[in-house]
Amino acid sequence: MTAQPDPIGEPSTRIIISVDAMGGDAGPSVVVAGIAESARKNPDIGFILHGPEETLRKLVAKRRVLDGRVVFRDCADVVTMEDKPSQVVRSGKGSSMWSALESVREGEASGAVSCGNTGALMALSTIRLRRLPGVTRPAIAILFPSRNPQAFNVMLDAGADVRADARDLLQYALMGASYARNGLDLARPRVGLLNVGTEEHKGRAELKEAHGLISDFAAQANFEFVGFVEGSDIPGDRADVIVTDGFTGNVAIKTGEGTAGMIGALLRQAFRYSPLSRLASVLAITSLNRLRKRIDPRQVNGGVFLGLNGTVIKSHGSADATGVSAAVKLAFTLAQSGFGQKLAARVASTVELTQDTVQRADEGARQEPEGRA
Amino acid sequence: MTAQPDPIGEPSTRIIISVDAMGGDAGPSVVVAGIAESARKNPDIGFILHGPEETLRKLVAKRRVLDGRVVFRDCADVVTMEDKPSQVVRSGKGSSMWSALESVREGEASGAVSCGNTGALMALSTIRLRRLPGVTRPAIAILFPSRNPQAFNVMLDAGADVRADARDLLQYALMGASYARNGLDLARPRVGLLNVGTEEHKGRAELKEAHGLISDFAAQANFEFVGFVEGSDIPGDRADVIVTDGFTGNVAIKTGEGTAGMIGALLRQAFRYSPLSRLASVLAITSLNRLRKRIDPRQVNGGVFLGLNGTVIKSHGSADATGVSAAVKLAFTLAQSGFGQKLAARVASTVELTQDTVQRADEGARQEPEGRA
Repeated sequence: MTAQPDPIGEPSTRIIISVDAMGGDAGPSVVVAGIAESARKNPDIGFILHGPEETLRKLVAKRRVLDGRVVFRDCADVVTMEDKPSQVVRSGKGSSMWSALESVREGEASGAVSCGNTGALMALSTIRLRRLPGVTRPAIAILFPSRNPQAFNVMLDAGADVRADARDLLQYALMGASYARNGLDLARPRVGLLNVGTEEHKGRAELKEAHGLISDFAAQANFEFVGFVEGSDIPGDRADVIVTDGFTGNVAIKTGEGTAGMIGALLRQAFRYSPLSRLASVLAITSLNRLRKRIDPRQVNGGVFLGLNGTVIKSHGSADATGVSAAVKLAFTLAQSGFGQKLAARVASTVELTQDTVQRADEGARQEPEGRA
Repeated sequence: MTAQPDPIGEPSTRIIISVDAMGGDAGPSVVVAGIAESARKNPDIGFILHGPEETLRKLVAKRRVLDGRVVFRDCADVVTMEDKPSQVVRSGKGSSMWSALESVREGEASGAVSCGNTGALMALSTIRLRRLPGVTRPAIAILFPSRNPQAFNVMLDAGADVRADARDLLQYALMGASYARNGLDLARPRVGLLNVGTEEHKGRAELKEAHGLISDFAAQANFEFVGFVEGSDIPGDRADVIVTDGFTGNVAIKTGEGTAGMIGALLRQAFRYSPLSRLASVLAITSLNRLRKRIDPRQVNGGVFLGLNGTVIKSHGSADATGVSAAVKLAFTLAQSGFGQKLAARVASTVELTQDTVQRADEGARQEPEGRA
């Protein structure tokens, strides 16, 4: 596991991404194909690749574009989709997933990408990289195709934790807004809190409390709070960032994916129905491909783990080369924008603000405002 | 509010549906157009129409197919979308919604249909029609377009109550299976419990408990329990009935609707993009219309309130005539199948079974069995 002698280019200009080659459904060849695609498009990227070195070297040797841009870390073990997170945390030290996170922990890489088991990756990331000060529950943020000009909305938590209290939801709002600024280049993102109606009296108790907290912090944290939003707003244009707990978020994403998949299948059926409709599909193919690309989850493959000391991207287990390349690109974009440092600073400042707010609330409305550090 | 002298056909053959003409976004003319559409397709249906009689009589007079098939109940008040349920329960007695439910309560009609405020309709229904014995939380069941042969899955609760404990989820499973048998004509529906993964160790505590309860009752209640399902299974073909709490269910439905709406908008855009794609849309129009019809929510418009003494259908507030007619058809189908009586019997039998199970469990733990009150 010591550093290999391979050159990885000029470290002063290249951004290094740590990639777990194992654990995805399609095996390491697809991961290597994915990083090759990224290397072709982006001269400023280098890789540390984790997995069985002999196998990986053979796969990399076939891709000339990767010459001199990959360092290997030999690991014999693989975390499977069936492994329980608790078990991986205890005995996963020899795995490619563990090793991929270690490169981020040691500062060798600016971010890690893995197609492996989500639960295990989150558990290992939390333990090895640690939470940012003030964050109780890290979250997974994903991009959901939407009617907004930027074509995607941020939604979190997508399933890191099935629970979230009002404070967690506030943290998600702050982290999600920061991600939207750096990942989607939105100067002042609009944040919505997911509920079953937009009226303020509706929904669960923790949501009403979170509504108040997020309202209080919106101006300081430089986002606009649009209040409660509904499921239809996740692919909509009322907000750029949708905040919810990991149970609801996970169900919503999978419902959206399932609905899109069903419509796609019915659409293909419709175009096969008659000679006329088959002709139509040929005529419309360019437009339809543009549509497909717009809503193709592979184009925005990657859930970002937020709230940790380091950037970790979870790629779909079933990602193909295009999907892996999209996840790598996201890791690169975030590294380039200095997202990790910005997020840490943002969360740290709001930890102080939260304490101020609580203290002021305790002291009552007539007390002297606290000086800020 | 006394019965009008109008004839409503031979009561021995016609099924009478009580319709709240007010409260929808489009006003009573759309509701009257909707019942006219139903009357045209179905000679065995008659209506009691609730709202301002003078207005309604004029609208009905324009539709010859409604001659002799409508009885009026004059009500001056309307429940608006902004009215709070608690307020409607206290002071909504003069409203068309209240009156529509009264016809079911009095046995004049086999079911009620309203396009009005969902929360108010559920609150009024619960108070006026009462819960079935053994049901703590009534639920709203909706039909979601799916890959299954029957083209739709049942999902509940769609938003009657933001909470549900394990017993409530069991009741939803029983009621949903009964609805699928009578509404979708499935002899032995497959029931799935919505979670964030299909592994049995995953998810919230009440879901693990509900998993056990539903397993225990599946055989007796004549459905197949497929265990945990995910959001992607709501439009999928692994289950016919999806059971969840009203918060998650409401978010899932609206996310699915929003996703379908976004794809539809992008598809229209794609077909307008170039002369070739415009030509393609003309050639494919029949196939595309078939697809649109398949996933058109208006075709299956209507959430059914389950767990009450009487059938109540909530139609979309924005429903057009086709949507209103679909809701009326659903009310008719359920009335014709004797759904109300069957559901009551099913729930009653499982109330005994639940008590037996609890008793057996207590005995198994070597405790003294409790005497039943």
